Amino acid sequence: MSDDEQSSHEQVDIETIIDALTSRSPNRIQALYRTAHPGDVEQAFERIGEDQREEILGVLPAEVLSEWADYLPPADVEMRLGSMSRPEQKEVLGGLSDDELVDFLQEVGEEDRPKFIELLPKEKRQASANLLQYPENTAGGRMTMAMATIPEKLSANEALEALKGVKEEIELLSRIFVIDNHHRLMGHVRLRDLAFAERDTPIGNLLHQNHFSIDALADQEEAANMIARYDLLALPVVDDGNRLLGVITHDDAVEILEEESTEDIEKISGIGGDRGDLAYLQTPVWIHLRRRFGWVLGLAFLGLASGWVLLQHESVFKAYYILSLYLPMVVAAGGNTGAQSATMVIRAMSLGELGPSEFGRVVWKELRIGILLGSLLGFCIAMQIQFLLPKTIIPEGIGIFQVASVVGLALTAQVLTSTITGALLPLFARIVRLDPAVVASPAITTLVDVSGSLIYFSLAQLLL
Amino acid sequence: MSDDEQSSHEQVDIETIIDALTSRSPNRIQALYRTAHPGDVEQAFERIGEDQREEILGVLPAEVLSEWADYLPPADVEMRLGSMSRPEQKEVLGGLSDDELVDFLQEVGEEDRPKFIELLPKEKRQASANLLQYPENTAGGRMTMAMATIPEKLSANEALEALKGVKEEIELLSRIFVIDNHHRLMGHVRLRDLAFAERDTPIGNLLHQNHFSIDALADQEEAANMIARYDLLALPVVDDGNRLLGVITHDDAVEILEEESTEDIEKISGIGGDRGDLAYLQTPVWIHLRRRFGWVLGLAFLGLASGWVLLQHESVFKAYYILSLYLPMVVAAGGNTGAQSATMVIRAMSLGELGPSEFGRVVWKELRIGILLGSLLGFCIAMQIQFLLPKTIIPEGIGIFQVASVVGLALTAQVLTSTITGALLPLFARIVRLDPAVVASPAITTLVDVSGSLIYFSLAQLLL
Repeated sequence: MSDDEQSSHEQVDIETIIDALTSRSPNRIQALYRTAHPGDVEQAFERIGEDQREEILGVLPAEVLSEWADYLPPADVEMRLGSMSRPEQKEVLGGLSDDELVDFLQEVGEEDRPKFIELLPKEKRQASANLLQYPENTAGGRMTMAMATIPEKLSANEALEALKGVKEEIELLSRIFVIDNHHRLMGHVRLRDLAFAERDTPIGNLLHQNHFSIDALADQEEAANMIARYDLLALPVVDDGNRLLGVITHDDAVEILEEESTEDIEKISGIGGDRGDLAYLQTPVWIHLRRRFGWVLGLAFLGLASGWVLLQHESVFKAYYILSLYLPMVVAAGGNTGAQSATMVIRAMSLGELGPSEFGRVVWKELRIGILLGSLLGFCIAMQIQFLLPKTIIPEGIGIFQVASVVGLALTAQVLTSTITGALLPLFARIVRLDPAVVASPAITTLVDVSGSLIYFSLAQLLL
Repeated sequence: MSDDEQSSHEQVDIETIIDALTSRSPNRIQALYRTAHPGDVEQAFERIGEDQREEILGVLPAEVLSEWADYLPPADVEMRLGSMSRPEQKEVLGGLSDDELVDFLQEVGEEDRPKFIELLPKEKRQASANLLQYPENTAGGRMTMAMATIPEKLSANEALEALKGVKEEIELLSRIFVIDNHHRLMGHVRLRDLAFAERDTPIGNLLHQNHFSIDALADQEEAANMIARYDLLALPVVDDGNRLLGVITHDDAVEILEEESTEDIEKISGIGGDRGDLAYLQTPVWIHLRRRFGWVLGLAFLGLASGWVLLQHESVFKAYYILSLYLPMVVAAGGNTGAQSATMVIRAMSLGELGPSEFGRVVWKELRIGILLGSLLGFCIAMQIQFLLPKTIIPEGIGIFQVASVVGLALTAQVLTSTITGALLPLFARIVRLDPAVVASPAITTLVDVSGSLIYFSLAQLLL
C-alpha cells in the first residue's frame, strides 16, 4: 500500500508497541491503533512469540484488525477471523487492499477460499477473481488493480474531474495510465503535467508513451528489477494483447527485492524451501527443521567421500602423523575460498551484473584470483612451518623443508581448485537453467574437502 | 533520480547495448543515447571488461556522458573527464544530479575536489558544499536537495504557481514539503490534494503533519528501512533544529537496501571490506584479492587448532583408524548447521525481526532445533553404520554397535553445540555493537571444526 502518509500515524518505538500488545489491554491497543503506523505494528508482531501472538490476536477488535490486516501474516488474520461474527469478518476482509486480499486468499487454500470470497463486497469479489488467475510469484499475482486510468479522448480538466471521485482509492496517483477503447495501454500522464496544464489541454498532448511494461505472467523479480533499474514509481502489468491489467508499485518492488535477497542468502547457506510470510520467531520449530535437515543429511553422506580418502591413505597418514596438524587447515582453506567465489558470482548474477556471455571472463578472473590467493597463502604457511614450528615436533627421517613444501603446495593447489570450483558451479547451474544460489556454500565446502585431502596425501606420498 | 519515465527511452536488450558500445562507432553510440535507458547502459557497462571500458569511455561525446554520468561509476566519469576540454567538463558535471555529484566529489578525494568544484555552476557549487558536510553513509550524505518546498501561508493556487517554474527540476513532486519562516518542516501536501483542491484553499487545510523524518547524521540504512516500512515515496531529512535539508526518495531506498543485502551476503561468506561502486567484473583482481585474503589467512591459522586436536589424539586415532571414515562428516556437520543458524539470525536482525529483548527467545528456538537436528542426523548415520557398513571394514576388537554409537552421539553433540554457537555469535556481536554479519560463516565453520574433532575423539576414547 502506497500513500499511507496522509494518516496521522507517528513513529512509535517498537518496544512500546510490544508492551502495549502483550498487555492485551483493549484501551492500550485502541490507543496504539490511533497512533502507531501499521508498519511498526507488523514489526512488533514479528518479535512476539507464537504462543502470545494467538492471545493478542484474540482481543483485537474488528476495526483494529481491518486496519492492520494488510500488514499481518495471512495465517494470523485467518486465525482471528475464525472467532469473529459474520459482519466483523466482512469488515476485516473489506478493509484489505486488493493485492493483500489475493495474498490472503492464496494462503488459505482452495478449500476455505469460497467461504471468504462469499463475504466480500461485489466489486472486490470480481477483482480478486481476476487476480487469482495469476500464480503467486508472477507480476500478475503481485499487482494491484487500484491504479488510475483515463481514456485518451479527455481534456486535462475532464481527466481531473474523472479522477476526483476515486482519488482516495488509488494507491499511486502520480502516474495516470491512458487507455484506448479496448483497454489497451497507450501511455501515461504524470499528475504534475495534469495539475499544471491549461484546463483544456487534450490528454494526447501530455501523453508519455509507455515503453516499460511487463507481462502478467513474467516473474515478479523481473518486475522489481525493472522498477529498480529505471527508477519507476509504478510498472504497468499487461496481458499479451497489451491490455492494462494492473500495476506493480515502487513499494512492492522493495518488498520483492528484500524477499529475493533473503532467499539468496538462505540458499547460499544451505537452507531450503520458501520462507513464506512468517518472520524468524513466527516460524514454528518443525518448519525451521524441515528447511535445514535436507541439506544437512545430504552433505553428511557426501562427507563420507572425504572419510574414504582418509581411510585409503592410512599408511602415509600413520607414517607421517605430523600431517594431521595441517590437514584441517588445507581442507578448510578450500571451503573458505570456494564459498567466497561462489558467493561473489551468485550475487553478481542476482544483481544482473553477469550474463552467459561473460562466463569466460568470470573464469579468467577467478583463475587469476585463485592463483594469487593460493600461492600467497601457501607461501605464508610454508614460512610459518619453516621458521616457527618447533623442530622437536617433526619426526626423524623427514626435514622441516619437506613438510613446509607439502603443506605450502597443497594449500596453493587446494585454494586454486576450490576458487575455480566455487565460481564454476553457479555458472553451470545457470546454464542448465537452475537458480545459481542452489549451489549452497556448504555443498562446495564438502565437495572441496574431498579434493583437499586427496591433494594433501598425494603430495605427501610424493614428497616425503 | 526519479521520474525518469517522461523520457523516450525504451527497454533495449543488454546484449545489443554491449554490442553497440564495444563497436565504438560514434553513430551507434549516438543512436543508443537516444533510445536506451541509462539504467540499461549502466548494466551493460557492468558486463564489459576493464580494458575495453576505457576505450569505450574514450569515444563518448560530452553530451552522451552528461546523460549517462549519473549511472556510471565515478571513477569512470573521472577518467573520461581527464581527456575532455574545459567546456565539455562543465557540461558533464553540470548534468549530474546533486546526489550523484556529491558521490562523485566524495570519490575523487579531497585533493582533486577543488578542481572539479570550480567547474560547477554557482548554485551547484553551493548545493554540493552543503551536501559534502555529511559523511557518505548518512542520510545527509545520500539525500537530494531537489525537492519541492512551499511556505505555509500560500493558497493552493499560489502554491501551484510557485511550483510551476521549477517542476521539471524536482525529483519527486508527489510530496510537497511545507516549511515555516525558519525553514522548519511543518508537514507536507500531496500533489493530488493540490491538484484537486479549490483554487483558493489555504495550504494549511491540505497539510498533513509530517511524523516521519530522519536526522541528517543518521545511518542511510535507517532511512531506507523507514521508507520500506512505511511505504514512503520520500523521507524528509532534517537537522537537529527540524530544519528541512533534503529528501531521500523511494529509488534511493531501493539502492541502499540492495547495497546492504550485498554487504550482508558478502560478509557472511567471509569477504571483507566495501564493494564500492564497482560491479564484479569492473573490480580489479587485486581488490578482489585484498577483500578475500584477510579472512582466508586468519582462518588458516585458526585451523591449526583443529590440527592440534588431531595431533593430541594420535594414539586413539591410530588404534581405531576406522574413525577417519567419519571424521570429516562429524566435523563438517557442525560447520553446516552452525552456518545455517548464523545466517537465519543475521538475516532476521537485518530485517528488523529481532531486537535485544528477543535474544533469549532465539536461543530457546535454536536449542530445540539443534537437539532435533542433531539427534535426527545422529540417528540416521548410526543406522547407516549399523546396517549398511561392510563388517569387514571394522577392525577386530570393537563391535559395529560401538562405532555406530560413537559416530551417532558425536554427530548429535556436534550439531547441537554448533547450532547454538552459530546463533550466539551474531547475537553477541550485536550486544557489543558490532555488525552481526561480521561473524562470517567460515569463521563459525573453522571454530566448530575444533569442537567437532574434540567431541569425536573424546567419545571414541570413552566408548571404544
